Amino acid sequence: MTPSQRLLLKQLVWRAAAISPSDGIVSTPPDADACLTWPMVEDRVRRLAAALRDLGVDPGDPVATLAFNDHRHLDAYLAVPCLGAVLHPVNVRWRDDEIVPVLQQTRDRIVFADATLASRMPVILSRCPWIETVIGLGPWSDAERASIGAVAFHDHDELVASGEPLDAWPDLDERAPMAFCSTSGTTGGPKTVAYTHRSTCLQTMALGLTDCMRLSGRDTVLAIVPMFHALGWCLPYATAMLGSRLVLPHRDLAPERILDLVSNHGVTTAAAVPTIWSGVLAALDAHPGRWNVETLDRIVSGGAAPTTAMIRGFRDRHGIEVIHSWGMTEINPVGTMSPEATTREEAMMSPDDRLGHQTVAGRPLPGLSLHLEDDEGRAVPHDGTSTGRLLVSGWWVAEGYLHDHAESPRFRDDGRLETGDVASIDDRGRLRIRDREKDLVKSGGEWIPSLELDRAIGDLPEVAAAAVVARPDDRWGERPVVVVVTAPAHETLTIDRLRTVLADRFQSWQIPDAVFEIDEMPLTSTGKIDKKTVRSMVAASD
Amino acid sequence: MTPSQRLLLKQLVWRAAAISPSDGIVSTPPDADACLTWPMVEDRVRRLAAALRDLGVDPGDPVATLAFNDHRHLDAYLAVPCLGAVLHPVNVRWRDDEIVPVLQQTRDRIVFADATLASRMPVILSRCPWIETVIGLGPWSDAERASIGAVAFHDHDELVASGEPLDAWPDLDERAPMAFCSTSGTTGGPKTVAYTHRSTCLQTMALGLTDCMRLSGRDTVLAIVPMFHALGWCLPYATAMLGSRLVLPHRDLAPERILDLVSNHGVTTAAAVPTIWSGVLAALDAHPGRWNVETLDRIVSGGAAPTTAMIRGFRDRHGIEVIHSWGMTEINPVGTMSPEATTREEAMMSPDDRLGHQTVAGRPLPGLSLHLEDDEGRAVPHDGTSTGRLLVSGWWVAEGYLHDHAESPRFRDDGRLETGDVASIDDRGRLRIRDREKDLVKSGGEWIPSLELDRAIGDLPEVAAAAVVARPDDRWGERPVVVVVTAPAHETLTIDRLRTVLADRFQSWQIPDAVFEIDEMPLTSTGKIDKKTVRSMVAASD
Repeated sequence: MTPSQRLLLKQLVWRAAAISPSDGIVSTPPDADACLTWPMVEDRVRRLAAALRDLGVDPGDPVATLAFNDHRHLDAYLAVPCLGAVLHPVNVRWRDDEIVPVLQQTRDRIVFADATLASRMPVILSRCPWIETVIGLGPWSDAERASIGAVAFHDHDELVASGEPLDAWPDLDERAPMAFCSTSGTTGGPKTVAYTHRSTCLQTMALGLTDCMRLSGRDTVLAIVPMFHALGWCLPYATAMLGSRLVLPHRDLAPERILDLVSNHGVTTAAAVPTIWSGVLAALDAHPGRWNVETLDRIVSGGAAPTTAMIRGFRDRHGIEVIHSWGMTEINPVGTMSPEATTREEAMMSPDDRLGHQTVAGRPLPGLSLHLEDDEGRAVPHDGTSTGRLLVSGWWVAEGYLHDHAESPRFRDDGRLETGDVASIDDRGRLRIRDREKDLVKSGGEWIPSLELDRAIGDLPEVAAAAVVARPDDRWGERPVVVVVTAPAHETLTIDRLRTVLADRFQSWQIPDAVFEIDEMPLTSTGKIDKKTVRSMVAASD
Repeated sequence: MTPSQRLLLKQLVWRAAAISPSDGIVSTPPDADACLTWPMVEDRVRRLAAALRDLGVDPGDPVATLAFNDHRHLDAYLAVPCLGAVLHPVNVRWRDDEIVPVLQQTRDRIVFADATLASRMPVILSRCPWIETVIGLGPWSDAERASIGAVAFHDHDELVASGEPLDAWPDLDERAPMAFCSTSGTTGGPKTVAYTHRSTCLQTMALGLTDCMRLSGRDTVLAIVPMFHALGWCLPYATAMLGSRLVLPHRDLAPERILDLVSNHGVTTAAAVPTIWSGVLAALDAHPGRWNVETLDRIVSGGAAPTTAMIRGFRDRHGIEVIHSWGMTEINPVGTMSPEATTREEAMMSPDDRLGHQTVAGRPLPGLSLHLEDDEGRAVPHDGTSTGRLLVSGWWVAEGYLHDHAESPRFRDDGRLETGDVASIDDRGRLRIRDREKDLVKSGGEWIPSLELDRAIGDLPEVAAAAVVARPDDRWGERPVVVVVTAPAHETLTIDRLRTVLADRFQSWQIPDAVFEIDEMPLTSTGKIDKKTVRSMVAASD
């Protein structure tokens, strides 16, 4: 195989500068907005790469980032892997005692750290003595610089300004890692997977498919999904491949700020978790005419299923298509997409008839395959109702965790990954996630799909958010209860009302026994409902 | 690497049956139309594969096809490579004495042969004694079956009907060949390249990009480009990946028939060479209202550049976008695409301002890179005016010819392929093919770009087709002359008119010295103007 046939990131990401030099990125860190063309980005990245090389970064070295979505983080996103080193974006929403074990696994010697996180660095550095160099993104004060003691400090902008641009990118093995992505395990410590040049190139190509998210060089893409979460769903690379405009919002993801960015920059598409999107929808509805969202064509909602009410709200009141996506860090990361219409059959349906399949996770991207199996490992039919353990295999599915972990056996030798989800697949290949295996409620020996109930209850007008969890029960083993946040200006949700509205879609024994009202739904660092905490809240209230 | 991570065709082409089972193909061979769903196609292919295995087809064996675009040829297109054998579609527009050397190179033991070609088989078989089995596509008469003598004959439909479906496809090496594609060389005999599973998977994915031809599962795709030409631009595989509807026209490609198919089946996109499209445009213009082409959104024109007049005609009079594509058999095969707007900058232009870049070949697909160099091998700037030898490298560019050939050195060790084209690239990465190296006219030591002149003259209302070629000249070495076919109901093109209309775009010494009128433009078997024959006509007329 010749070097140019290898699936290397350098074959994709410089395309924007070559084909769309008048376009580029809009970055909004707290210190000052930056508008850079793609050729300017390429020049910055070549300078940073040379500086990193001079700092002793060798192929294969992990380089961590503790950073938000901005142009400086993008510099690292491009320079580190193209240089042959390994980008290691760490979730800054984690507590220090979650971050340290992640850095301990890979022992990154160099860390890019955002100025707004400077106050956390002394503690992190004191517990990670292998870190030799901090590269500060944005203005670190003298006191902040002094606070990291003997660890070397470089200002990112100065590194970029001082270096001579690297003239050629190395030829690498396409199966060499280009990034390490870590997720926090509930038990057994962090789990880290390697994304290879090959897997990320294939995932990035797939994002540009018409039947994925219709990404194009004509788009202005607002990347809300954090770059420290599953490689930002590869959106930075996809926009660099296509020459789209990329808008980077940094850390403030309040609905009003997101809508300001959409309105000011003519954003055409954006990606985030549903909790973000429900806030955006509420803000849009509360302030008619405040923002111009005419350019916004479609938004991708991933990490959890959007409700029918949300899909309908964006569509009917604001003309915006919600594309549901399912994936996981171990899939590098996108697995399925569910646009309004993938096939001719769907295109001919009425918008309301399509709603049913828009809430599902959708179809696997080309190159991936989904599998369902029962407790004995037998194949479960794809009939839309039978449920089974979901497995996924294909071109960009990871092969295992970087370090041995209690969950390592989920990566099977034949390339099938046990996702931990319980799901059904219909006769059109559409995936519906029924529950997380660990969140299933088992009552009287029967599984109750808590996610299905979450969605049905979440769709009620009086409910802003709902989480069904198991409560231990002497008679039935477990019984479902629901924890809700009531929508503004709405009555309390009573158990009688719940029984009435759910009666035609669920068996009576599947309907929760009790309703708990809380003020705010606990969320994980990636914005999903934190059922572990919800279960503790229920246990504490008993 | 696990088997499921390999880039194998079987990972892509069964997706249609899984996600779009209600859709499928419309095939129109002379014996009877066939409408088959994708699951029916998959079932047929599994049966054919089992039958081929029983006939002794082993992994790596070449299996030739002499066939048109229909459902039976599609069966072979899917069964042969997924079985690990090598599909070898041979251009049936070639003469027998061109076909025989191609079969001689690979010594295919089994040949699929269309019934409408049965009369040619005795001669071909007598000269290819290594062929053991003919599989007849469509109804072969008893006399035709008898005519092939001792060679075994199987009816394709019977093979498909009788076999038990193959239950599992083998795991293969992703770099194993899945097809051999042959082109006729002007000297040195046929040139054959191997397409691998990997290269074809990557090309097929690229066809689904929004910024390529916007192919989707919602499309009804009319594949006019023959499946014996550069693997039908991989459209059969792309539609099988996406679950689109695929319309296969068999051998009659008259403009009226193409328009009937578009109108009857609601075709949304189609691909062919410009000579086909100019006929279609003329038919549409000549019969207003006869065909409903409202569904037809965009057409891809490849193999030669469409004229501005054609692009404008389809757009202004029929609301159809013409996407120019450039590629070659050695690129597996698509290199560039030129849709109306790839970037935000282009999207904001007026349609007429965009025309200038729609006639160019456009931008390389992601994964490919273009390079220009001068006679000394130095890089030529991408400024839109400087011209140089065009080289292409990237993920699906072939590595060489299967057998040594005078042109083998064009495949360089670093993966760059010398295309044989002379081109410029502008500062937006847009490729413009200026000429074939071998068609350049050299006058007084200066190159005259004959293709540029072809286009300019072809755009005149009185010209239906134009070809500028070199005529030997005592004083200047060579001088350009033009051979034209006059448009119906138009005056003769005079040399004075030519000088007047070209004066503001060409130097006076670049304008042809003479105009020759002919009734019909000689075309190659792939529908391009045959300049070699044009040159002989000019020489003969002197």
